[in-house]
Amino acid sequence: MISSVSKIQVRYSETDMMGIVYHASYFPWLEIGRTNLLKENGISYAELEQSGILLPVVEVQMKYRRPATYDDTILVTSTIRERALAKVRLDYELHKEDQLIATGYSVHAFMNRSGAPIKAPQRFVDMLNEAFC
Amino acid sequence: MISSVSKIQVRYSETDMMGIVYHASYFPWLEIGRTNLLKENGISYAELEQSGILLPVVEVQMKYRRPATYDDTILVTSTIRERALAKVRLDYELHKEDQLIATGYSVHAFMNRSGAPIKAPQRFVDMLNEAFC
Amino acid sequence: MISSVSKIQVRYSETDMMGIVYHASYFPWLEIGRTNLLKENGISYAELEQSGILLPVVEVQMKYRRPATYDDTILVTSTIRERALAKVRLDYELHKEDQLIATGYSVHAFMNRSGAPIKAPQRFVDMLNEAFC
Amino acid sequence: MISSVSKIQVRYSETDMMGIVYHASYFPWLEIGRTNLLKENGISYAELEQSGILLPVVEVQMKYRRPATYDDTILVTSTIRERALAKVRLDYELHKEDQLIATGYSVHAFMNRSGAPIKAPQRFVDMLNEAFC
Repeated sequence: MISSVSKIQVRYSETDMMGIVYHASYFPWLEIGRTNLLKENGISYAELEQSGILLPVVEVQMKYRRPATYDDTILVTSTIRERALAKVRLDYELHKEDQLIATGYSVHAFMNRSGAPIKAPQRFVDMLNEAFC
Repeated sequence: MISSVSKIQVRYSETDMMGIVYHASYFPWLEIGRTNLLKENGISYAELEQSGILLPVVEVQMKYRRPATYDDTILVTSTIRERALAKVRLDYELHKEDQLIATGYSVHAFMNRSGAPIKAPQRFVDMLNEAFC
Repeated sequence: MISSVSKIQVRYSETDMMGIVYHASYFPWLEIGRTNLLKENGISYAELEQSGILLPVVEVQMKYRRPATYDDTILVTSTIRERALAKVRLDYELHKEDQLIATGYSVHAFMNRSGAPIKAPQRFVDMLNEAFC
Repeated sequence: MISSVSKIQVRYSETDMMGIVYHASYFPWLEIGRTNLLKENGISYAELEQSGILLPVVEVQMKYRRPATYDDTILVTSTIRERALAKVRLDYELHKEDQLIATGYSVHAFMNRSGAPIKAPQRFVDMLNEAFC
């Protein structure tokens, strides 16, 4: 299991007229979670893209239990639970203080600049091998 | 079954550095689908909120099959398949010309301004009764 | 003078907890205005980018007179007032029914994929020549 | 003069197909700058709104000198230069390492929930009095 916790401060721009965070505003938070999880394991996603390896989202899901509001501090826990290489799945838990406010997942596939599926890059395989040995 | 088709012209702001539409940019499109489906059945969601009835998202999911790009015309088909009152589920199919490029769903609950669950308003019940008689 | 009017239906996602449209949500509308102004004059901005010609924003300004709210219909009038080639300036007026609700401008420079300034493409020069003859 | 520096890590969601940060994505950063400037001077904007005092944007401007890209660290310096109470103006400078990449300003007016202009709240006046004595 590979896990990482990211701290988010809710932006005014992320709210909607319901007075709470707009549901789609959570997805950039998950992305920060992924970026940090990779970084903590020695992988810069920015560099990965520069080298022509993309990791587009092929599926996302999110369940909202309690609202998040402006200026809240949210902890996003991102986890890879399986040593899978064809598709990468991350699970997310969002907490506001002690409360679990949302859960979700995202699934990604490795792709080149032309949009063709490619094998996971070696540094990614190494990361998984190390974590799931 | 209640169904509605909305036409979306992809905005530049909805793309990301991958050169395609950012995955979370699809969710406002589903929202336009919902707004139109209700409007075509005599319900203004704006008025619903003004009268104190909210319909927050409690779950969303999206599967991405093919990319959407800037200035594409996307057709969003929104469908309510069941006469359910406690929670409302909508299913979505997104097409670019003949191609199905994404599918998804959203689940909603009726809530008042204080965040407490409430019964579906009469006009909503009427809409479902008419459609699923 | 080259002018174009675009119709915007305000999205729920564009609002914030103040109950009105978030100020930065206006900028994608201006972009739709620009895209349409060019299209009506025979220029596809999508094709322009594919051919390696970019038109990034170098300056924007917006003054907000009255709020826009969810599901409002907003008319965006985009205008090029000068035959200028080094930098392109567009002025915008936003109306909600009869009311002028906001005004703004954007300034753009032609750039290639490497970020170097380039001359305006011929089709753009032709458009200006025709309009300002 | 009242000044505050906020650190921003550029999100993937903030980029567009030009490969750089979308121009309107800078405005939520300015907002974080404002929120922090107030917080460092003992004012919670979230509490201000809860007490019925709103500070909507009446004007914004931004000049873009150099691009910002995904995962960049940007420092936003927000400054109030004048003891003005009817309208509050903030100036912003954005730096990426040593480079000034953008400058801008925003103007705000105090408003109540009904949209009527109101006087600046006492804690805001106090903050200005202390800074500009």
